Amino acid sequence: MSILPLRTELIPFLNPYLPASPVKNGKVSVTLTYAQSIDAKISKGPGIRTAISHAETKSMTHYLRYHHDAILVGSGTALADDPGLNCKWVPANNNYTKSFDNSPRPIILDTKQKWSFKGSKMYDLFMAKEGKSPIVIVTKAPTKEEEYVSYLVCPSDPTTGYVDWKELLQRLNNEYGINSVMIEGGANVIQQLLTKPDIVDNLIVTIGSIYLGKSGVGVSPDNSVELTDIDWWKGTTDTIMCARLSS
Amino acid sequence: MSILPLRTELIPFLNPYLPASPVKNGKVSVTLTYAQSIDAKISKGPGIRTAISHAETKSMTHYLRYHHDAILVGSGTALADDPGLNCKWVPANNNYTKSFDNSPRPIILDTKQKWSFKGSKMYDLFMAKEGKSPIVIVTKAPTKEEEYVSYLVCPSDPTTGYVDWKELLQRLNNEYGINSVMIEGGANVIQQLLTKPDIVDNLIVTIGSIYLGKSGVGVSPDNSVELTDIDWWKGTTDTIMCARLSS
Ligand SMILES: NC(=O)c1ccc[n+]([C@@H]2O[C@H](COP(=O)([O-])OP(=O)(O)OC[C@H]3O[C@@H](n4cnc5c(N)ncnc54)[C@H](OP(=O)(O)O)[C@@H]3O)[C@@H](O)[C@H]2O)c1
Ligand SMILES: NC(=O)c1ccc[n+]([C@@H]2O[C@H](COP(=O)([O-])OP(=O)(O)OC[C@H]3O[C@@H](n4cnc5c(N)ncnc54)[C@H](OP(=O)(O)O)[C@@H]3O)[C@@H](O)[C@H]2O)c1
Repeated sequence: MSILPLRTELIPFLNPYLPASPVKNGKVSVTLTYAQSIDAKISKGPGIRTAISHAETKSMTHYLRYHHDAILVGSGTALADDPGLNCKWVPANNNYTKSFDNSPRPIILDTKQKWSFKGSKMYDLFMAKEGKSPIVIVTKAPTKEEEYVSYLVCPSDPTTGYVDWKELLQRLNNEYGINSVMIEGGANVIQQLLTKPDIVDNLIVTIGSIYLGKSGVGVSPDNSVELTDIDWWKGTTDTIMCARLSS
Repeated sequence: MSILPLRTELIPFLNPYLPASPVKNGKVSVTLTYAQSIDAKISKGPGIRTAISHAETKSMTHYLRYHHDAILVGSGTALADDPGLNCKWVPANNNYTKSFDNSPRPIILDTKQKWSFKGSKMYDLFMAKEGKSPIVIVTKAPTKEEEYVSYLVCPSDPTTGYVDWKELLQRLNNEYGINSVMIEGGANVIQQLLTKPDIVDNLIVTIGSIYLGKSGVGVSPDNSVELTDIDWWKGTTDTIMCARLSS
């Protein structure tokens, strides 16, 4: 499936919120991005793939992926949505037209190894040379390793079972040369990161003009979060907010 | 307290979403309007008055009030926020400079008579001739009538205890000559009306660039709701969506 051409006004609008290159003070640049309804739902219900945004804002997602070394999602999203996580956007004057070269490296936070690469859309895209193979984050050495998958073993907090974001990003930089990560969801991952201004450099939220209703999967952090450097772009039916988390 | 001058671009932006005058097919024109955070919270918690929107979008609220005969809120909002509900916006070439003349008639849905006019901000404004006296909607004749308050007795649904919106609006038109009502909240009232395209003519939602967090009072209808005639306006830090509910 192809994508709509990128709306040209999006290029200057997004520019201040793209990863710094080269990296600043050795910090991996992190972009937190997702699409929500007016009522702050990112899907109609757990496991229901939901159309929220207009095709023109979906093209923006591919443009953003083009500008990042890696793209991260939680196991919940990998299992519920079977996302492809490749990049279909190609700059007009670019010689690399293959999605493989332009695509970021997928990273799946899947400490319990619930998700399988084989049989996934990501696998099909990798086989067709239209996407890269994933790095799977686990908390102990995997019992069974899948072909083409790289495993990164990160220790986790004994109470939450969660790996520490700062350490994870440092390891991705040291061991895989990753300088920028786009984090696309899901709810659990987004909510953790909304309260971490030391980790998140840029926030890009698409708001689709629909209400998904009470049984949708909502995004709201544990505490209130203030934003700075706010800008809005108005599309045909969606609006996009770019901002930074106040520290 | 005075308000900021209205941003001039708001006038053409809001124009298509103002009440039709004269009324169409005898129907009272209803504008549903509220301000929310990115995470769809309209206050930080029950009873906590919360700054969500920029002063320039607050001026819009007064401009909208100017264009409506009445302004309605639920008892929850009247009790939690003690709102003034008057109009502070004055057109530059208008001879009526007093808030009293420009102000809509406040309507409080307070079937159990929990709210009291005396002692409220609305009372002080009325006494200072800066706002009108309220119509209180009750389901049976009030046991004790407050001075200056008009009571409208509407029958309620025996299971929900709620009055029927269509009948309520018809009675406001017949008995008080009200042709347009702006409905400002709170959560309970908004959620009922988001699923009633036959009642709501225009929807105006301000989104402030802040997250209020999980313990905030959220707005999400029982089911998904599609919108039409969507337009967005970008302010300094807020965005405003105007739309209509799909039927
Ligand atoms: N609209 C959008 O933009 C968008 C984008 C993406 C997803 N979604 C939606 O989001 C929903 C899924 O969200 P979700 O909250 O269920 O799942 P999720 O956030 O994708 O994944 C959560 C899981 O990831 C792992 N994880 C998260 N943080 C971790 C950490 N710090 N360390 C180690 N592991 C961590 C944990 O699983 P383990 O314990 O198994 O490791 C956790 O249960 C789906 O409905 C999907 O459609 C929407
Ligand atoms: N950000 C904003 O734009 C905004 C605007 C307004 C309010 N708010 C916030 O909203 C919160 C209050 O919301 P809320 O949900 O608690 O209260 P609410 O919606 O203001 O009031 C709900 C009450 O109104 C009465 N009511 C509603 N529909 C009715 C019907 N069809 N027939 C008869 N009575 C009806 C019922 O009370 P009775 O049974 O007592 O009649 C009901 O419990 C506050 O935190 C306030 O700050 C925010």
